[in-house]
Amino acid sequence: MTLSGVGALTFDVFGTVVDWRTGIAREGAALGRRKGIDLDWTAFADAWRALYQPAMERVRGGEIAWCKLDELHRMNLDILLARHGVAGLTEEDIDQFNRAWHRLDPWPDAVAGLTRLKRKFILATLSNGNVSLLVNMAKYGGLPWDAVLGAETAGAYKPQPEAYLRTAELLGLAPERCMMVAAHNGDLAAASALGMKTAFVRRPREYGPEQTSDLAADGDWDIIAEDFLELADKLGC
Amino acid sequence: MTLSGVGALTFDVFGTVVDWRTGIAREGAALGRRKGIDLDWTAFADAWRALYQPAMERVRGGEIAWCKLDELHRMNLDILLARHGVAGLTEEDIDQFNRAWHRLDPWPDAVAGLTRLKRKFILATLSNGNVSLLVNMAKYGGLPWDAVLGAETAGAYKPQPEAYLRTAELLGLAPERCMMVAAHNGDLAAASALGMKTAFVRRPREYGPEQTSDLAADGDWDIIAEDFLELADKLGC
Repeated sequence: MTLSGVGALTFDVFGTVVDWRTGIAREGAALGRRKGIDLDWTAFADAWRALYQPAMERVRGGEIAWCKLDELHRMNLDILLARHGVAGLTEEDIDQFNRAWHRLDPWPDAVAGLTRLKRKFILATLSNGNVSLLVNMAKYGGLPWDAVLGAETAGAYKPQPEAYLRTAELLGLAPERCMMVAAHNGDLAAASALGMKTAFVRRPREYGPEQTSDLAADGDWDIIAEDFLELADKLGC
Repeated sequence: MTLSGVGALTFDVFGTVVDWRTGIAREGAALGRRKGIDLDWTAFADAWRALYQPAMERVRGGEIAWCKLDELHRMNLDILLARHGVAGLTEEDIDQFNRAWHRLDPWPDAVAGLTRLKRKFILATLSNGNVSLLVNMAKYGGLPWDAVLGAETAGAYKPQPEAYLRTAELLGLAPERCMMVAAHNGDLAAASALGMKTAFVRRPREYGPEQTSDLAADGDWDIIAEDFLELADKLGC
């Protein structure tokens, strides 16, 4: 394993850097209290997230034209609100709730770990989130990115190769000089197949206490870490 | 003048944020000493910069396919080295000198001003520099960008409208909610024509003590400031 040439770390964001489930449930609950909507908002968050991959798949497959993630989130939110018979929300309420994805808390180790890693590496997002979502999230949570890149700047959603390759190209680095950091084995498999280095960071509560997927590394990743602090340790930061 | 809706400041970089002339001349002089090349490196910097617009014009006009600025800088460097009869440089020497554009010092007020502005606004580059150039420059000089965007993420060089409009779109803001900050009246004119707000920051030594262009604002810009500290004052940061 030679990691000495790595110049940039590229990060999956939802689940790897931030805790989307808690954040979405919290904002849903606040909306519910304000508007008198009685729902299990954690289940709502899970259901919203469950529509994420199918919506991107419609873009990947060409069924619908390129849409940024904010728009896919909104399509899915409208579906869920109708499914639950939620009425009485204004356009502003719905838009505000849709932007809850811009206001997700980092995992407790994330900012401290990124701050250490930033001394030695370029830190870039390589997320399916759109640029403005990720920029707003970084302002909200204090995430010290050097560059906010990913699906929108590539015009392709992970795991399509173009998402990874275009991000490396924008960073001016060969894929081999970029290390993908993710809590999802599938993301790392796609990155690795293109020559990128890989780091698996375990996030066993991304889907709550009953999580069954991605509890452990299932590939021969370059680094496996419990959190971003251990990642920084292992990368000598 | 209503600036209350401005969410992002988008910055021209070469000349507005960093002092390219001093930086390029300094690296040229160091190269010259190492390799025994006797040239006026400040004049060389000016000549290199003078080839910048014509090279981009070849891309804008479709004469050559999209090239990032690093590549245009290299084409122009090769022309100048040949013109001056410089021989004996290795490929590594030339590549290293070409990347001097990644290592330019910020004007003395820039980091302090940006740091204040960042508390209230999204700060993004809107530069003709490519992403990796701008990311490396930010690491080198400590420029606290929230997003590194511009020509490369738009696929168009300023002053083409797409460079401005795509950057605003990536930031998730209407052009009216973005303020272009530049030391160049022409850049502000192009931004203003698209509905962006404008701030002129005077950089009367960008081209050295004999500078004749852009010594003063020549349009009805929303803000005129002597430096980034005054810009921060005027924006209430």
